[in-house]
Amino acid sequence: MPVVHPSPSGSPLSDLIGSSVVTLDDVSTGQILELLHQAQYIDAHRSTVAHICDGRVLATLFYEPSTRTRLSFETAMLRLGGQVIGFAGAQLSSVSKGESISDTLKTVSNYVDVVAIRHPKEGAALVASRAATVPVINAGDGGHMHPTQTLADLATLESRFGRITDLTIGLCGDLTFGRTVHSLIETLCRFGHVRFVLISPPELRTPRYVLDRIDANPTCSYTEVDDLTAAIGDLDVLYMTRVQKERFFNEDDYLRLRDTYILDEDKLRLSKPHMAVMHPLPRVNEIAAEVDRDPRAAYFEQVKNGMLMRMALESAVVGDALPGYEPLEAKEVRV
Amino acid sequence: MPVVHPSPSGSPLSDLIGSSVVTLDDVSTGQILELLHQAQYIDAHRSTVAHICDGRVLATLFYEPSTRTRLSFETAMLRLGGQVIGFAGAQLSSVSKGESISDTLKTVSNYVDVVAIRHPKEGAALVASRAATVPVINAGDGGHMHPTQTLADLATLESRFGRITDLTIGLCGDLTFGRTVHSLIETLCRFGHVRFVLISPPELRTPRYVLDRIDANPTCSYTEVDDLTAAIGDLDVLYMTRVQKERFFNEDDYLRLRDTYILDEDKLRLSKPHMAVMHPLPRVNEIAAEVDRDPRAAYFEQVKNGMLMRMALESAVVGDALPGYEPLEAKEVRV
Amino acid sequence: MPVVHPSPSGSPLSDLIGSSVVTLDDVSTGQILELLHQAQYIDAHRSTVAHICDGRVLATLFYEPSTRTRLSFETAMLRLGGQVIGFAGAQLSSVSKGESISDTLKTVSNYVDVVAIRHPKEGAALVASRAATVPVINAGDGGHMHPTQTLADLATLESRFGRITDLTIGLCGDLTFGRTVHSLIETLCRFGHVRFVLISPPELRTPRYVLDRIDANPTCSYTEVDDLTAAIGDLDVLYMTRVQKERFFNEDDYLRLRDTYILDEDKLRLSKPHMAVMHPLPRVNEIAAEVDRDPRAAYFEQVKNGMLMRMALESAVVGDALPGYEPLEAKEVRV
Repeated sequence: MPVVHPSPSGSPLSDLIGSSVVTLDDVSTGQILELLHQAQYIDAHRSTVAHICDGRVLATLFYEPSTRTRLSFETAMLRLGGQVIGFAGAQLSSVSKGESISDTLKTVSNYVDVVAIRHPKEGAALVASRAATVPVINAGDGGHMHPTQTLADLATLESRFGRITDLTIGLCGDLTFGRTVHSLIETLCRFGHVRFVLISPPELRTPRYVLDRIDANPTCSYTEVDDLTAAIGDLDVLYMTRVQKERFFNEDDYLRLRDTYILDEDKLRLSKPHMAVMHPLPRVNEIAAEVDRDPRAAYFEQVKNGMLMRMALESAVVGDALPGYEPLEAKEVRV
Repeated sequence: MPVVHPSPSGSPLSDLIGSSVVTLDDVSTGQILELLHQAQYIDAHRSTVAHICDGRVLATLFYEPSTRTRLSFETAMLRLGGQVIGFAGAQLSSVSKGESISDTLKTVSNYVDVVAIRHPKEGAALVASRAATVPVINAGDGGHMHPTQTLADLATLESRFGRITDLTIGLCGDLTFGRTVHSLIETLCRFGHVRFVLISPPELRTPRYVLDRIDANPTCSYTEVDDLTAAIGDLDVLYMTRVQKERFFNEDDYLRLRDTYILDEDKLRLSKPHMAVMHPLPRVNEIAAEVDRDPRAAYFEQVKNGMLMRMALESAVVGDALPGYEPLEAKEVRV
Repeated sequence: MPVVHPSPSGSPLSDLIGSSVVTLDDVSTGQILELLHQAQYIDAHRSTVAHICDGRVLATLFYEPSTRTRLSFETAMLRLGGQVIGFAGAQLSSVSKGESISDTLKTVSNYVDVVAIRHPKEGAALVASRAATVPVINAGDGGHMHPTQTLADLATLESRFGRITDLTIGLCGDLTFGRTVHSLIETLCRFGHVRFVLISPPELRTPRYVLDRIDANPTCSYTEVDDLTAAIGDLDVLYMTRVQKERFFNEDDYLRLRDTYILDEDKLRLSKPHMAVMHPLPRVNEIAAEVDRDPRAAYFEQVKNGMLMRMALESAVVGDALPGYEPLEAKEVRV
């Protein structure tokens, strides 16, 4: 590691130095709160942190394309003063030329300080993290689960409400196959004190194992409904997801349901004035463009928060402290 | 914006801060002259400007490949001390995955300070500039028009002749479909005092609307000829373009005309000793390789000038002043 | 060149400033020893060199994909404080759009301080170096020969044994088509005092012209054998290569030979305790994964040494001295 980087101390994040983040289970609730706090500090002190990763190099190893995610990881490192190498899906052929993920990671560990990996196969990030001698961050593997999307979602709750608990959170659309939504529910249940309103057609309900996670925390609860219009008035947060045509048995069902799950100004008028509309992006037509102008629209803030959380996470795992940052007081985390 | 960047003042370029450049109509003649002046300053003071964009990030969003242009935009930002993220044509698929240009630009606006966009559809750069919250520079959309190519051409006139007016400029080849040539003519007509010699086969003459632009400025004039050899002796500048085989009705016409519009040493011998040979590149065979050694060859200087003008433009739109640079005296610009 | 870079003096490497490296014949034995010495210095003084190429830009022009090599060249420049532009195979189309390598290099010479080029055609790097006005480093052309792979191999000998001569070096596998192996033999013969043990099936023996190079140096010698197990005990170095199925006339021969040339723990047990196992990577199955844990495994060190040698070479050709580095005493190089 070319340049001297003082390590942070007195912070739960010091345990993250050198660690890989394959799922959010690799990060404690205390560490998540600390990362949320750091993201806000970073946003308010961009000049202060602009060189803390001087001399660091990030590798973005994207075995399938995901431009949005790749650019977020890369910008995060560049805005910390570090550098980036890598490949995106299209250049994959030369990498996969008979070489195992393990060998690629052992090779790349000689070049960089931290790796962000995206791979179509579930488990690839875990394999990568075991072979690498530097921290590996999962940027999505199999079913497109990736922990930093959930961190972006939490950061958006924090910046809108000053908290990630004591909220009524509506999740709307495809709740069967939407891994983003499952990951958010599971992580929120680690903190507790959340009421979920699960809004979907009967064909696309939340799977039992996710509901079990909610049931397991007595401070959390859920209701399942299929009418967005009826439910929207109670929500602090409306998290929209794509409803993919191919999930339906027939065209008629799709057409009948589609409009029900499109958020437009008419439906938005029924919601609380401070409700936050979220979406993992890219959207197709689940949210009408007219909604963008409404102050409740928070989905482009999620993009910014994703970058900030990746800045916090990348600096944490390589061990570069944020100058002037004071860690949260050690506080009992509710679980 | 992570790092403190003092804004330039007392310069017509201060109006460009935060502005998008979709066409050169977005830039006043006074601003064009200032950018030309800055490019020369930058070339002479490379160390001085090497860190003025420290903390800035450029996104190159290339929806179609154009490696030459992309590398020029990227080098420009890197040589100012900034950083680059982006994608090139091949990785497009993931971006276009149902997402509108507007949404992509709203997303990327959270990551970067300035965007260079290339897109096969006319109007894409305008759409992008309206959605983005950071300046957008058109790197070519529809018919491959892009304002920074014209700026590179003007900078080459300036560096060769110390002026961009009072010149006899020959334009040779495909004058019907060559957007580069149209843009150059239109921009020079804003400054006036140029004599155009339009050298093409009858099938590939300059369109009426472009000739109207010349007619509209009483200090400009043109002649249309079809013989390069006869015309070359009068020229200060010979701007060559590609003649594409597929523009012709039949092979015979193509073969007959092709040789007429190839510049070689024999034809060059008939020109003034200080004539400048220009070409937007890439060339196929319009200019023989032997011409490269002649001091009149200016086409690789155009490449350098393109990078310098992009350095001037990128620093102008993000608002980073050039240390020690003195703006041109406010002067009446002839139009 | 944007920033002031003091030139090294009193070193044989000062002759490399501005030079292209198409083959290792472009580098004297004295310069090779100096580069090996520098690589070790760089490894031990990473902070010291982290900014010596500030303001420099490297272009990686990869006309065919070779992610591993590209990332090594790029990391080398980034870890010296420089920047990188370029393209990888997939984006090739726009470059090759009728443009010659010469024109591309003349264009890119306006952008950067040094070029690394990879091209499927033999001779492409030489053509590139003649057209460019900046140093060009061959990153592989035709048959995938590239001098920096050999430099990585030599650096691994140096770091393991403190010398690159007075060694018994076994080369195992496909010795007919393996250009990496030929280049290593030829370069070692320039230094002399090496005993080669050439281990291959009869079908894949070392070509006569390579053997002639060994014969031409009276301090070098070789034996040809086909049994790895019998030979391994005598070796200081075992350099493994891929045996490609398609080299064989029939499946039976392939299956019969394959196992003979796979290195596993059983065979390794027969070797000297300080033998170094090398491989140019990527491996397919020539070395069992269990060998990775053995201290004799040196192939991932080769990766690191490749990066270090590229750091030494890139800084040498652009003329950026290593602060505090003392050149090797002028010493008579044995040839």
